[in-house]
Amino acid sequence: MGNKHIPDIIIGRLPQYLRSLQRMGREGRQVTSSQELGERLGISAAQIRKDLSQFGEFGKQGSGYQIDYLVEQLQNILHVNKEWDVAVVGAGDIGSAVARYKGFINRGFRVAMIFDSDPRKIGTKIGDYTVLDSQMMKEIIQEAGIKMAMIAVPAEKAQEVANLLVEAGVKAILNYAPISITVTPPARVQYIDPSIHLQRMAYYME
Amino acid sequence: MGNKHIPDIIIGRLPQYLRSLQRMGREGRQVTSSQELGERLGISAAQIRKDLSQFGEFGKQGSGYQIDYLVEQLQNILHVNKEWDVAVVGAGDIGSAVARYKGFINRGFRVAMIFDSDPRKIGTKIGDYTVLDSQMMKEIIQEAGIKMAMIAVPAEKAQEVANLLVEAGVKAILNYAPISITVTPPARVQYIDPSIHLQRMAYYME
Repeated sequence: MGNKHIPDIIIGRLPQYLRSLQRMGREGRQVTSSQELGERLGISAAQIRKDLSQFGEFGKQGSGYQIDYLVEQLQNILHVNKEWDVAVVGAGDIGSAVARYKGFINRGFRVAMIFDSDPRKIGTKIGDYTVLDSQMMKEIIQEAGIKMAMIAVPAEKAQEVANLLVEAGVKAILNYAPISITVTPPARVQYIDPSIHLQRMAYYME
Repeated sequence: MGNKHIPDIIIGRLPQYLRSLQRMGREGRQVTSSQELGERLGISAAQIRKDLSQFGEFGKQGSGYQIDYLVEQLQNILHVNKEWDVAVVGAGDIGSAVARYKGFINRGFRVAMIFDSDPRKIGTKIGDYTVLDSQMMKEIIQEAGIKMAMIAVPAEKAQEVANLLVEAGVKAILNYAPISITVTPPARVQYIDPSIHLQRMAYYME
C-alpha cells in the first residue's frame, strides 16, 4: 500500500464489502466470489475485483476469496482492527438513539461519551452514559484523545460544535444535523441526512 | 427533461444543492453562484453548472442563480413539491427518533405511521403516532397508498420487511438496518448506516 493515492470513491465502497463479508462470516460461510458479493451489493463483480486489486492480491483466480482473511485485511486497511472511541454531541432523540445503538459492535467503534448543553439533560443517564456538559467538551475530548465524533444538535449549532471538536483534536465528524458544515483538513466530515436519500429516490417516483 | 436518462450520481447531488439553497433562502438571500454553492458543499463550481445544465437553463452567465426559482425547479425535478407520506417500520430507538424527527419538514416528506411487531409496543404512543401492528402492515400501507418507507428493525428482519413493503406497493425504502437488502425494480433502496461513514473516515486516520 505505502503512500499510493487511492480515490475516495473506492475507499467509500470498502466498508460495504466489509459489512457483507462479515455477515457471510456470521452465516458460517468460508469462501465467496466477487460475483456473489456483487449480487448482494448491486455492484459489478469487475468493479469489486478492481477495487480490491488496489490493495493487493486477496483471492485466487477461480477459487474466490477466503472470507475471514479478506475481512481481516479490510479491517486493517480501514483501520478498524481496533475500536475507536467516538463522542456524541447532542442528547436529543437522534443523539440518544445513536448512543444506545448496537450497530457499532464489531464495526470498529464505541460510543465513549455524550454531551448536551441543556442543564435539564446534563447529569441524566442515557443507557450507560451520563450526559456531560458541552461547555466542558473541548477539554474532555482533548484529555481523552478522542478523534471521532457524531454531531446531533440543531442545524444552527452544528458548525459551532464542529469548530470546537476540530480544535479539540477530532479528525472525523459524522454530522446528523441537516446542514453542510466545513472543517479544516485533515479533519473530515460525512453526513447522515435521511431527507437527502428520500429525495434521491423521489426523483424516480411517478 | 422528457425521457432523457440522467446518471443517478447526478440525481444524488441535486438534494444537496436543494438543501443548501433552501438554507440560503432562510438566511434571506436572493441570489447565489455556482462558486458559492460549491464552496458550501465541497463540490466544484464546474460540476454544479454541468449537473444543473442537464435540466435546463437556471442562471444567467455572470448574474448567478435566483435562489427561490432554483429551489422551486429542483423541488419539481425531485418530485418533492408535494409531501410524500412515509411509513416507519420498527419502533425501537432509531424508529422512534425518526418518527419524531423534525428534519423532514420542508423537505417533501411526512411520517404517516409507525409499525412494530412487539405486543408491548403496539398501541403505545410515539409523539403523535400510535404504534400499529406490523401484521396489518401490508393492508394498511396498500389502503393508504403509501409509496415510501423507512426500515428500522433488526438486521435479520430487514429483508422480510422489505419484501412485504414492496408487495404493498412501496417503491422507495430507506433502510436503517445494517444489512444489504434487495428489492425488485422499480422499487429502490438506500441506506443509513453510520458505521459505513465512520469506516470511510477511519481509513484516513493515523
